[in-house]
Amino acid sequence: MASDSEHDKNTPVTLLLKELAIQTGAVIRGDETLAIHGIATLDSATEGDLCFVTEEKYLPKLERCQASVVVLKPEYQGSFAGTVLLHDNPYYIYARASQHFSPYPAIQQGIHPTAVVHESVTLGKGVSIAAQAVVEQGVSIGDYCVIGAGSVVGAGTKLGDNTQIRANVTLHAQSQIGERCIIHSGVVIGDDGFGFAPHEEQWERIVQMGNVRIGDDVEIGANTTIDRAALSSTVIGNGVKIDNLVQIGHNVEIGDNTIIVACCGIGGSTKIGKNCKIGGATGMAGHLDIADGVMITGMSQVTGSLRKPYTSYSSGTGISETGLWRRNVVRFKQLSELTTTVKKLQKQVKKLIENTDGRES
Amino acid sequence: MASDSEHDKNTPVTLLLKELAIQTGAVIRGDETLAIHGIATLDSATEGDLCFVTEEKYLPKLERCQASVVVLKPEYQGSFAGTVLLHDNPYYIYARASQHFSPYPAIQQGIHPTAVVHESVTLGKGVSIAAQAVVEQGVSIGDYCVIGAGSVVGAGTKLGDNTQIRANVTLHAQSQIGERCIIHSGVVIGDDGFGFAPHEEQWERIVQMGNVRIGDDVEIGANTTIDRAALSSTVIGNGVKIDNLVQIGHNVEIGDNTIIVACCGIGGSTKIGKNCKIGGATGMAGHLDIADGVMITGMSQVTGSLRKPYTSYSSGTGISETGLWRRNVVRFKQLSELTTTVKKLQKQVKKLIENTDGRES
Amino acid sequence: MASDSEHDKNTPVTLLLKELAIQTGAVIRGDETLAIHGIATLDSATEGDLCFVTEEKYLPKLERCQASVVVLKPEYQGSFAGTVLLHDNPYYIYARASQHFSPYPAIQQGIHPTAVVHESVTLGKGVSIAAQAVVEQGVSIGDYCVIGAGSVVGAGTKLGDNTQIRANVTLHAQSQIGERCIIHSGVVIGDDGFGFAPHEEQWERIVQMGNVRIGDDVEIGANTTIDRAALSSTVIGNGVKIDNLVQIGHNVEIGDNTIIVACCGIGGSTKIGKNCKIGGATGMAGHLDIADGVMITGMSQVTGSLRKPYTSYSSGTGISETGLWRRNVVRFKQLSELTTTVKKLQKQVKKLIENTDGRES
Repeated sequence: MASDSEHDKNTPVTLLLKELAIQTGAVIRGDETLAIHGIATLDSATEGDLCFVTEEKYLPKLERCQASVVVLKPEYQGSFAGTVLLHDNPYYIYARASQHFSPYPAIQQGIHPTAVVHESVTLGKGVSIAAQAVVEQGVSIGDYCVIGAGSVVGAGTKLGDNTQIRANVTLHAQSQIGERCIIHSGVVIGDDGFGFAPHEEQWERIVQMGNVRIGDDVEIGANTTIDRAALSSTVIGNGVKIDNLVQIGHNVEIGDNTIIVACCGIGGSTKIGKNCKIGGATGMAGHLDIADGVMITGMSQVTGSLRKPYTSYSSGTGISETGLWRRNVVRFKQLSELTTTVKKLQKQVKKLIENTDGRES
Repeated sequence: MASDSEHDKNTPVTLLLKELAIQTGAVIRGDETLAIHGIATLDSATEGDLCFVTEEKYLPKLERCQASVVVLKPEYQGSFAGTVLLHDNPYYIYARASQHFSPYPAIQQGIHPTAVVHESVTLGKGVSIAAQAVVEQGVSIGDYCVIGAGSVVGAGTKLGDNTQIRANVTLHAQSQIGERCIIHSGVVIGDDGFGFAPHEEQWERIVQMGNVRIGDDVEIGANTTIDRAALSSTVIGNGVKIDNLVQIGHNVEIGDNTIIVACCGIGGSTKIGKNCKIGGATGMAGHLDIADGVMITGMSQVTGSLRKPYTSYSSGTGISETGLWRRNVVRFKQLSELTTTVKKLQKQVKKLIENTDGRES
Repeated sequence: MASDSEHDKNTPVTLLLKELAIQTGAVIRGDETLAIHGIATLDSATEGDLCFVTEEKYLPKLERCQASVVVLKPEYQGSFAGTVLLHDNPYYIYARASQHFSPYPAIQQGIHPTAVVHESVTLGKGVSIAAQAVVEQGVSIGDYCVIGAGSVVGAGTKLGDNTQIRANVTLHAQSQIGERCIIHSGVVIGDDGFGFAPHEEQWERIVQMGNVRIGDDVEIGANTTIDRAALSSTVIGNGVKIDNLVQIGHNVEIGDNTIIVACCGIGGSTKIGKNCKIGGATGMAGHLDIADGVMITGMSQVTGSLRKPYTSYSSGTGISETGLWRRNVVRFKQLSELTTTVKKLQKQVKKLIENTDGRES
């Protein structure tokens, strides 16, 4: 096993507690002059670290916590002897604080000599294009964009300002990506949708003539694939967050701020509303409508539209010990039959009761 | 959000309606001299566009459709005032028409100066090898093949004529790929199968000595993985279409023209017949036999062989609102018990009826 | 279809039977001087090949098997007329024999001229860095490591001795990988975990400040993704084997020698014990505890912790013909209701029996 690293603190970054409080509206109780050098768990924190507590059950850990400051809900402010930062949503304060740190080295602006950038490319200010990257003809790259090592940006693609393309990403021709997006490694955007017409027991290829359009503030997880539309566009709204290894079929449309956890597959032409939360490994058939704010728990099998907004849906059998599961799964396959048996029993019992009642009366 | 693109028409392509009719056997009613400049949806079509209707429910849209020509089944030919192209399978005509268009720029033949091509490689006519690609020793590349940017073609690999390898693909040593295939970005073909022998609570690695053999006219979707065989070959038949993020285990064999939708996992040594349709996110155990023409709906759990050809199979629980699902899933775990209870009830009721009958008679 | 290859034997390798016997403790019955030139299936073996039989049902094939030596359990030694190698676990002997062969060409030590290796990188002895690879600042690479073509090794990453990174892999900054690991093509290690804090109907990004730590003798399958921790580390133990297209969330910890089959998704912060076997396409929620030695069958939906060590768990409905499945799935959605009906029937029948008994007595 490799030994423990100390990488969390290898870049000397300082975040003033006061600055964080001003940015977020959180309130300091204690030393207002503190400088934060890192973020840590309650157990591992040392001097200079910020910690946070989101659940009451972790409060007892604060007794031995060595952090310089702990983010708490106002009602828990008495739980820590040192400086506290108070806010109703400590997790949000943690998120904002984390944005001052990074495990990555500083990005070097400019084009690496091994990158291949077509002469027709439009480059914004402060762009970084890493080693072995390829940027094809007619691409337009916004200010302060980063193209990671080995990534390929197809012809005519447009990237908004401050968008990051990590290493070994593939963006196919004509893709449009908004501002402040992060596209993680191995992602494939705009490769062809899966379209074939059956003809004499073979499959006739349908050229996918559309593209992919992605809004602002979108994050796409590693090795996720988003197919180009057959016609018009596959559309990912603003603020959408997609995890790793997700498949988005052609002509799918996803509303603003929807979040999709890893390993989901979304069938072609399905429309998902805004503010939805799709649990991991959920599969959706194509051509469905999912209402705004729908929440789907993990591994759900979505075979039809879900039209009730802000409603939670689930599927699957949960998990049991294998012996019990085997017996139950046999019975699942006889469930319709069982129901028929029960209905028949109901009638028989009803009649028996009537007879008995008749006799008794 | 990025603004709408007009990329569908950025290459001035013209397809003569008459040519399409001759190629496909479709019949023109109207202006036989029409030139088609693009394909569009019924709602967005403008002059020069071809549209198609596959389902009766879309016919009312034809009243306001601005397309120059609409592909229809012969029985609907009266539904559009302009020129129509008649065929029993409009979707097939759309597919054939689409093949005259492309969202990609024209491919440049030749080897990009940054590509690394081993001196022993055999190159056909008109081959294109893009920037940063690597082609290792002993590779044989057929006529008019395309190797995308950043792709790696392992030693001894053979590619048939007119096969396209998109950007950032990895083909491992000794892979064999037929003619007219399209291997999409991020695909990994011929990396090692998952083989380990248990030995003293650890796993002893089994070197995967076989390879992957892929037929003609095969399409492999983005980020899909096809493992090399332990011994002999993993085999993908002619005309097979595999979508994105699919896993094909070592020594799997897939029959001609079978189609596999995204996110499926096929366990090692499973044999799938020809003309099968495997729905998305289906999981198959290893060492199974799936008969020809089997259809499997999405998210199916295939734990045993499916030997009835041209038969449709399904699994899963569908989806419900979470509250109802929770109650049902508790009951699923008691299903065997419930069945026992019902059987007991049946006996009791039978006896009660006999007693009643006996008493009544 | 591409023609059959003979790649299994294209490198003339010789393994002395005696050497294999000494290495593994297996016993030779027959010609102790034999040299093995390859490994083959019982049906395809020719002179010079080694075969193995793990199950009794394959013994009849030995009558016509042309192999020079067959590995058998001692009790079956009479089943083959030629030389046999006897061991209680023939599959293990096959694994050990396979390690003397390879479908890949010999690795060339040294740094390819097109590779980009930062001047600050620490290189062990006999390292191989292939074409178009990128190795960033502060990376430390152990002796005899191999970095495949097009791979990107992020800043500060550490690789133990004899570790192989295949082509087109991405290792993000600060990743730590042990000795003798194999990281297959398309793998992404150490890209950001999926962490966002909800704030005013949007998602506030949580910078993932931790890293990924991988033990010795680990294998990570093609296109698998392992996310860096939010804080501290995502940890993969020694001897862990992970198949293709698996997602490992941030802060997951996996115990030694656990094996995870393809297409699984493991939610963030879940802890899996040692010696577990996780079937393919299993989905696990986050923050769970899975005990040592737990076995989970394929496509299981793991929604809660599994705390019973060395126990087998399962889930799912299996598969049925679609018509039957449709009827059963309707009934699944009424299962709670059905159970209530049955309970009511039980009461009614109990009363009827009491009444009858009362009347009869």
